[in-house]
Amino acid sequence: MIAQGEYILLKAEGGREYFTSVRDEKLHTDLGIVDLKNIEGLEWGAIVYSHLGKEFKVLKPRTPDFFKHIKRTGAPMMPKDIGTIISYTGVCPDDTILDAGTGSGVLAIYLGTIAKKVITYEANEHFVNVARKNVDKAGLKNIEVRHGNIVEEIKSLEGPFDVVTLDMQEAAKVVHDAKRVLMNGGFLATYSPFFEQTSEIRAAVEREGFNDIITVLINEHELEFGERGTRPSTRVGHTGFLTFARK
Amino acid sequence: MIAQGEYILLKAEGGREYFTSVRDEKLHTDLGIVDLKNIEGLEWGAIVYSHLGKEFKVLKPRTPDFFKHIKRTGAPMMPKDIGTIISYTGVCPDDTILDAGTGSGVLAIYLGTIAKKVITYEANEHFVNVARKNVDKAGLKNIEVRHGNIVEEIKSLEGPFDVVTLDMQEAAKVVHDAKRVLMNGGFLATYSPFFEQTSEIRAAVEREGFNDIITVLINEHELEFGERGTRPSTRVGHTGFLTFARK
Amino acid sequence: MIAQGEYILLKAEGGREYFTSVRDEKLHTDLGIVDLKNIEGLEWGAIVYSHLGKEFKVLKPRTPDFFKHIKRTGAPMMPKDIGTIISYTGVCPDDTILDAGTGSGVLAIYLGTIAKKVITYEANEHFVNVARKNVDKAGLKNIEVRHGNIVEEIKSLEGPFDVVTLDMQEAAKVVHDAKRVLMNGGFLATYSPFFEQTSEIRAAVEREGFNDIITVLINEHELEFGERGTRPSTRVGHTGFLTFARK
Amino acid sequence: MIAQGEYILLKAEGGREYFTSVRDEKLHTDLGIVDLKNIEGLEWGAIVYSHLGKEFKVLKPRTPDFFKHIKRTGAPMMPKDIGTIISYTGVCPDDTILDAGTGSGVLAIYLGTIAKKVITYEANEHFVNVARKNVDKAGLKNIEVRHGNIVEEIKSLEGPFDVVTLDMQEAAKVVHDAKRVLMNGGFLATYSPFFEQTSEIRAAVEREGFNDIITVLINEHELEFGERGTRPSTRVGHTGFLTFARK
Repeated sequence: MIAQGEYILLKAEGGREYFTSVRDEKLHTDLGIVDLKNIEGLEWGAIVYSHLGKEFKVLKPRTPDFFKHIKRTGAPMMPKDIGTIISYTGVCPDDTILDAGTGSGVLAIYLGTIAKKVITYEANEHFVNVARKNVDKAGLKNIEVRHGNIVEEIKSLEGPFDVVTLDMQEAAKVVHDAKRVLMNGGFLATYSPFFEQTSEIRAAVEREGFNDIITVLINEHELEFGERGTRPSTRVGHTGFLTFARK
Repeated sequence: MIAQGEYILLKAEGGREYFTSVRDEKLHTDLGIVDLKNIEGLEWGAIVYSHLGKEFKVLKPRTPDFFKHIKRTGAPMMPKDIGTIISYTGVCPDDTILDAGTGSGVLAIYLGTIAKKVITYEANEHFVNVARKNVDKAGLKNIEVRHGNIVEEIKSLEGPFDVVTLDMQEAAKVVHDAKRVLMNGGFLATYSPFFEQTSEIRAAVEREGFNDIITVLINEHELEFGERGTRPSTRVGHTGFLTFARK
Repeated sequence: MIAQGEYILLKAEGGREYFTSVRDEKLHTDLGIVDLKNIEGLEWGAIVYSHLGKEFKVLKPRTPDFFKHIKRTGAPMMPKDIGTIISYTGVCPDDTILDAGTGSGVLAIYLGTIAKKVITYEANEHFVNVARKNVDKAGLKNIEVRHGNIVEEIKSLEGPFDVVTLDMQEAAKVVHDAKRVLMNGGFLATYSPFFEQTSEIRAAVEREGFNDIITVLINEHELEFGERGTRPSTRVGHTGFLTFARK
Repeated sequence: MIAQGEYILLKAEGGREYFTSVRDEKLHTDLGIVDLKNIEGLEWGAIVYSHLGKEFKVLKPRTPDFFKHIKRTGAPMMPKDIGTIISYTGVCPDDTILDAGTGSGVLAIYLGTIAKKVITYEANEHFVNVARKNVDKAGLKNIEVRHGNIVEEIKSLEGPFDVVTLDMQEAAKVVHDAKRVLMNGGFLATYSPFFEQTSEIRAAVEREGFNDIITVLINEHELEFGERGTRPSTRVGHTGFLTFARK
């Protein structure tokens, strides 16, 4: 049952969608006005109607919805890379994960949706505030956004963590302590758009004696199914190098 | 604490690894003999020694370990594709998922590690047996491997499911009922190595009025860091077309 | 020695460039006025100066300059694909080549720059005119742009041609006669952005008993060397499927 | 008319092929014996028969045939990369080209097939001998294979060259003189499988004030058309980074 204050995705026929919350307000859309107050008490997936009689599905937001609708700062990691981190490290509901830098919190939200606990560090205060709001919208109580530079902060952490994820310029400087706080068998996963940073990270994980080191680039090609035929799309999102290493 | 009968990953220095279980036996390795019986009662991540004094970490297997060590039949989906399914559909611990065809159960195990419940159909009896053993090794009680052709079986299913995943030749024939058993906002994800099947699936999801339809090909390029420099690897795994559609 | 009327590429310091011709006119640029008349009689590669004393190199245009500066209609084949056609078929100065559809003539100009003779068909009269002007700008007397639908026109051609190149929707309908007019050992090369057309072409070349049939997709990834590091570019040009077959 | 001593490609029905020459010998094949002496005086493309009555086409070898059949040392550049060099630099029959290192001469043969003159340097004497034999087989009199290290040898060259192509570890050390010997508007093209070398080359071409600098990676994906459908192949050739810069 949907409660007052809860975030929802309203999806109209034809696919147009609105990420909003259940509250004492009216949502004005191209397809008419929806009274958000009336959504309280409905079941997820219920249908409501605008004053023009247009149908809207009331959906429980899932991670791709947060990716699409939350405030983003800079260039977030794309779902193809996030998914590869999840599958290569085997993120699961028992996991405690250490993450940095938070950015707008996209990766932390994906991880926190699955894992038991995520602690994420962000040095930039503005980003910390954005990320906290986003985590709140995702309704995830198990994500702790900490303001601080992980290069320093990790020194006083004990762990053990099951997974450490790093998407930050100075990732190589964190590798030594990342190994210390990981439990045996735990994974380090790093993301960098830049080759040179990736090369530093590789040198660091090799120096620290990690196992199963691998660096990959994930390219996503969309297929466009049009009237004239099916063709590879020329649109691409940004991408980066993923490096995995196991303690 | 590790119990008798539990599956473990023994990882020696240098990275060599053994997927085995805690039982009344001795494991003979190149680095000496490990007495598996002595592992009972230890904590995950503990160190044991072979009779030659070589160190082995006792690791709790994670999904990539199952991918690597379980018996596989045919060409399983690769982690890059599995991860993309997880991130594009937002698989989470609340989910009930319908899957087919099971094959050796690789995708089902990844999904079952995260989701509340996975029901997976496989028409080939030999694969059903392989998959059941694999699910058992993964220690997942929430995956139900059913013997049957989902094209027929889905007609008597009610749902609702949060996600339906299809990796089978006749996927297009399942699309109509997949929509019926999905809850509003739920995702259908299909995988096919073949263009023609993908084209049929696209036609089906468009005909059934799904939203947010997208087809992607995920290419993974490994970077090799060698003594002479860093170069793109020429090794590639097999790949396939992923189609996503939302109810 | 550069003659009156000849097409030239004027390249200023910093890389800005002007594709123009030697004639009784003045070229107004951001870096001052260049008197085009004074270029007559100079050697290729000579330096001229604008009235502001800025340096301009007078370059003999090469095929990439035509690609960049001639009038283009629709989506021309990209250099990566053109180059792959040249290397896969081994285009050489002894070759007589049959091409269709001409479009703006980009491929014909690349081929005509190397081969002895290119005959190219275009059904659309507007494109014929554009292509003829472009061929003229490229100074290539060995390219004959014919107005007509090759599906019909090829029936009255005798050949033999060393290479036949097709970049047109109905390419599959030309395959039978393409084989007839090719000399033994000659290559057919087709380009299509669409999968379905490519599939028809493949069926046709297999039916006609061609040898060495191969279909490839060429993806080009640019590396961006920036101040923060080197990263894969997210810009991509359009692409298409190249099919090669040998008589 | 085919002369005594000339290299030929004999192509049997079904596609099996033999790269050989016209001489006083008999060629033993799975499809019977072909008397090579009888080929003298025939036209290119003629049909000859084995003693078993099997048909063989007598083809004039084209560059892809040399790529396939000549002796190769190490990992030669692939046709996709060679083609991209040709199209990005606009190699044409008027060109004089400087090339190093020769290796087995694959790139030099492609270039020499089109250009007026190719001078190519190779430091390794064994490779020099292999390359000279290959050039001879290709029947190209306009390719001069010189034994020497271009890093030193280029200092005494004057040029001007239209294109300089470098596929060698120390390419960055050649960039300064490459610019000197290029004519205005001429292109430098380098190939390296390694990122670090590419990075050095980029630094060098930027330092030397080249224009239109671009680095690309060309990935080729084959499509396999099988009975079960059409799928992306998992076979890939090796690849490398191409850097282009214009004087």
